Amino acid sequence: MTSLFDLIGLVAAALTTFAFLPQVIQTWRSRSAAGLNFAMLLVLATGVFLWLVYGIGAGQLPVILANGATLVLVLILLGFKTRDLLRRDPLAP
Amino acid sequence: MTSLFDLIGLVAAALTTFAFLPQVIQTWRSRSAAGLNFAMLLVLATGVFLWLVYGIGAGQLPVILANGATLVLVLILLGFKTRDLLRRDPLAP
Repeated sequence: MTSLFDLIGLVAAALTTFAFLPQVIQTWRSRSAAGLNFAMLLVLATGVFLWLVYGIGAGQLPVILANGATLVLVLILLGFKTRDLLRRDPLAP
Repeated sequence: MTSLFDLIGLVAAALTTFAFLPQVIQTWRSRSAAGLNFAMLLVLATGVFLWLVYGIGAGQLPVILANGATLVLVLILLGFKTRDLLRRDPLAP
């Protein structure tokens, strides 16, 4: 029997997972990741990856699915940001 | 006895919580939240709030602490973004 709090946990997981989707769309459309912080994306990707490892170790499928999906979205943002940083001319004013 | 996977979970929680700190600093310094997506921040804040409710309901202190801290950081970013949106002149070219 699923309790109210389990249901709240499931909705919470869905929201924190798919929150990054509109950000991916905005960053892709604007062709710029200037407003996103590189350290945030790197630390977030590492943290979500470790959540995935934890989920696999603990055999918790919801943790695996939620963090697997989040990791894909955060890695896309990290890719955009890395491309921005590499393109930026360090000698430009 | 703490297992290796519990330790990985704790590190994961710390990383996904404090990932937003450098983003808060960058957004505050640049005085602009233009690169951040409003829907991401709103959905993320709602999701983290529900994680907090879940943690309180399940009596899990680590979930409460991690999501409480994340919620404060995400709400600061949402505040910056909302201020940006309110200041933007809809009649400007």
